[in-house]
Amino acid sequence: MKPTHKTMLEADFLLTNAGRLATVAEHPAPPLEGPLGVLRNGALAARNGRIVWIGAQDEVAQAVNLVADAQRLDAANALVLPGFVDSHTHLVFAGHRAGEFHERLRGATYAELLAQGRGILTTVGATRAASAADLETSARQRMARCLAHGATTLEAKSGYGLNLADELKCLQVIAALRDGPPRLASTCMAAHAIPPEYRADRAAYVRLVCDEILPAARPLADFCDVFCESGAFDAAESRTILERARDLGYKLKLHANQLGHSGGATLAAELNAVSADHLDFITDADRAALRSAGVVATLLPGCAYTLRHAYPDGRRWLDAGLNIALATDLNPGSSYTENMQFVIGLAIPFCGLTVAEALRAATRGGAQALQLDTEIGSLEVGKRCDLTIWDTTDEHEIGYHVGVNLVKRVVVDGAVAL
Amino acid sequence: MKPTHKTMLEADFLLTNAGRLATVAEHPAPPLEGPLGVLRNGALAARNGRIVWIGAQDEVAQAVNLVADAQRLDAANALVLPGFVDSHTHLVFAGHRAGEFHERLRGATYAELLAQGRGILTTVGATRAASAADLETSARQRMARCLAHGATTLEAKSGYGLNLADELKCLQVIAALRDGPPRLASTCMAAHAIPPEYRADRAAYVRLVCDEILPAARPLADFCDVFCESGAFDAAESRTILERARDLGYKLKLHANQLGHSGGATLAAELNAVSADHLDFITDADRAALRSAGVVATLLPGCAYTLRHAYPDGRRWLDAGLNIALATDLNPGSSYTENMQFVIGLAIPFCGLTVAEALRAATRGGAQALQLDTEIGSLEVGKRCDLTIWDTTDEHEIGYHVGVNLVKRVVVDGAVAL
Repeated sequence: MKPTHKTMLEADFLLTNAGRLATVAEHPAPPLEGPLGVLRNGALAARNGRIVWIGAQDEVAQAVNLVADAQRLDAANALVLPGFVDSHTHLVFAGHRAGEFHERLRGATYAELLAQGRGILTTVGATRAASAADLETSARQRMARCLAHGATTLEAKSGYGLNLADELKCLQVIAALRDGPPRLASTCMAAHAIPPEYRADRAAYVRLVCDEILPAARPLADFCDVFCESGAFDAAESRTILERARDLGYKLKLHANQLGHSGGATLAAELNAVSADHLDFITDADRAALRSAGVVATLLPGCAYTLRHAYPDGRRWLDAGLNIALATDLNPGSSYTENMQFVIGLAIPFCGLTVAEALRAATRGGAQALQLDTEIGSLEVGKRCDLTIWDTTDEHEIGYHVGVNLVKRVVVDGAVAL
Repeated sequence: MKPTHKTMLEADFLLTNAGRLATVAEHPAPPLEGPLGVLRNGALAARNGRIVWIGAQDEVAQAVNLVADAQRLDAANALVLPGFVDSHTHLVFAGHRAGEFHERLRGATYAELLAQGRGILTTVGATRAASAADLETSARQRMARCLAHGATTLEAKSGYGLNLADELKCLQVIAALRDGPPRLASTCMAAHAIPPEYRADRAAYVRLVCDEILPAARPLADFCDVFCESGAFDAAESRTILERARDLGYKLKLHANQLGHSGGATLAAELNAVSADHLDFITDADRAALRSAGVVATLLPGCAYTLRHAYPDGRRWLDAGLNIALATDLNPGSSYTENMQFVIGLAIPFCGLTVAEALRAATRGGAQALQLDTEIGSLEVGKRCDLTIWDTTDEHEIGYHVGVNLVKRVVVDGAVAL
């Protein structure tokens, strides 16, 4: 029996020998080092899924009292990070669009594919035709890949149903997946595209979204997201939908300014959206407006890689004083990847971020983009115990040693998930 | 007991239910389909590590008689490919150069780093200081990652020793690793850089290579490779070394025309090298000369990704009628990746290759670059049974579904390696 001191903390999870424990605390003070607030030779204890203690390895015995059958993990001097928060995924879909991807590389344009009823409409057709059980199975496989690459929280959007029944089907699948891990946030994105049957009457689809889908989906989703873009929803339509969503109690997100100056960024600022995502075509005025409104800028470099577009300039977003998030945009059209390390690996050379900035955007930034930063995104006492143990001792290996999974172990809610 | 028919083949390995078995046969005839020679609903049997039968799934029972304790694998309708042949790696090295990588992204040039005694010299210093046991341990970790991503054969070069003792140390490590899997081919690359202690007398290092290192290394290496480049060995020095190597019975490779018109490609053609690698600065005359000489053009897009250079134009190499190989160039300076899928994923969009062309270059092409194409690189009766089973039914998912490892199982020499 260990002696129990009156100041000892009870814990049911203990991580020892973290060579570098990057807290990603907002204002790190000594002994935390550098922009990621790194504690050297650290340890961390949790109880009931929440962090109760972080300290020096050699203080564990004095500080922590483990309950019977507590889980212990030895990090063996490796790097430890907060779990990634992938704040933008289209997790639930059927089929894939590999053929279209390779046709585009041979010169086909997205507009041509869409005119043939392909592009996103291929996925809408497949998703409508799929059973909830099949959608759940394929989404679980993707979740497992996300987790294996270090994501402990995902946002998951509907948006390939585009009618009442199929949007609800997809949101119910997301609800069923919330047992995790990883943990999920849910977004209704009925306004992802104009469905083919409404092409001649766009206004009728906007009414359907506002009057039927959003009210019915409210118990299933935290966020409402709209694709504000030429070819999808214009700024006026987006405003109508988002204002209705806000009235219903949804938090707001926008796919904004991905392919052109859609007005989405302005709208995101005006409506105080939690995040505006993509943001490839942006003016300094857009940046200033988003900053004033406290909107998180979510950058999705996987799309630039897949579509061979220019990468978003992460440097300019940071210099403008915004919080940025990095996310996969996991989807079968423009970014088919479950791997946050791949996205970080793109963001460092191509979006101009330092390793610390990219890792912050992939953890705390993602949590801010989900308004969950009081709960997750950093390793601090009181927050959920979501962390990753790495196959390296140095975070600078991320983005440099590429194409391989450097995450070795994953902990969600104080439980070893992998 | 199964009835034994007189024409039945004895086998100790059986792969069943290959939804698409891509043979990568040189001249595929029906029932093989498409440029990769795909057999649908196929099966494959091997004995003592060699393929003895390939045929339709529904013919297995009539064709194959399994010995006791044979290994069986059910591909469950998935894609099956020949194992990747990664024909260009610097597998054995100590330390990493993450700091340098990130400094280069912030604007430092390679020439500046080299002038500070960094760049490749950092790795030379660390490798000289490392014990053979430590080099073997880290190389085995890399081999395991290569294997996990589908490579069943690797070439491995020395070249961070740059003196007799340390070049032999690295080649002995490679020899110790030849128990695999993956299987290894060995290359002496004492002419990787001018070591710092010979900077004032380059000719003396060339003599050391010719008179001492190459003769002593001969029992340990199949190939001799030279970095023919401004800053490394000029065309005359490269010729001296390679002619000596040829006389000693080495097969020849060149790092050629990576950073400029080094004359390496011309020399590779003249000396009938097995392969010329990198080839970023190339004229049509170079292509014609390499083609006439039967030299394999090895493209290394991981370097272009890491160094942010232009990608090699794979299309033009194919149009010029050459055999091309794709390889990782696994090394701590310009391409730190063990993942052939990542390289193929770069080659399709950025080198202009189709999926079939890229996969051919990563299998049969790699085998040609090692002069092992009568043994490996395709799935044909008589060849080694080296194959991968994929987490997809369609090879077009490769390069499109990125950042994740789509290889599920790996077989080397008719034995399940993973």
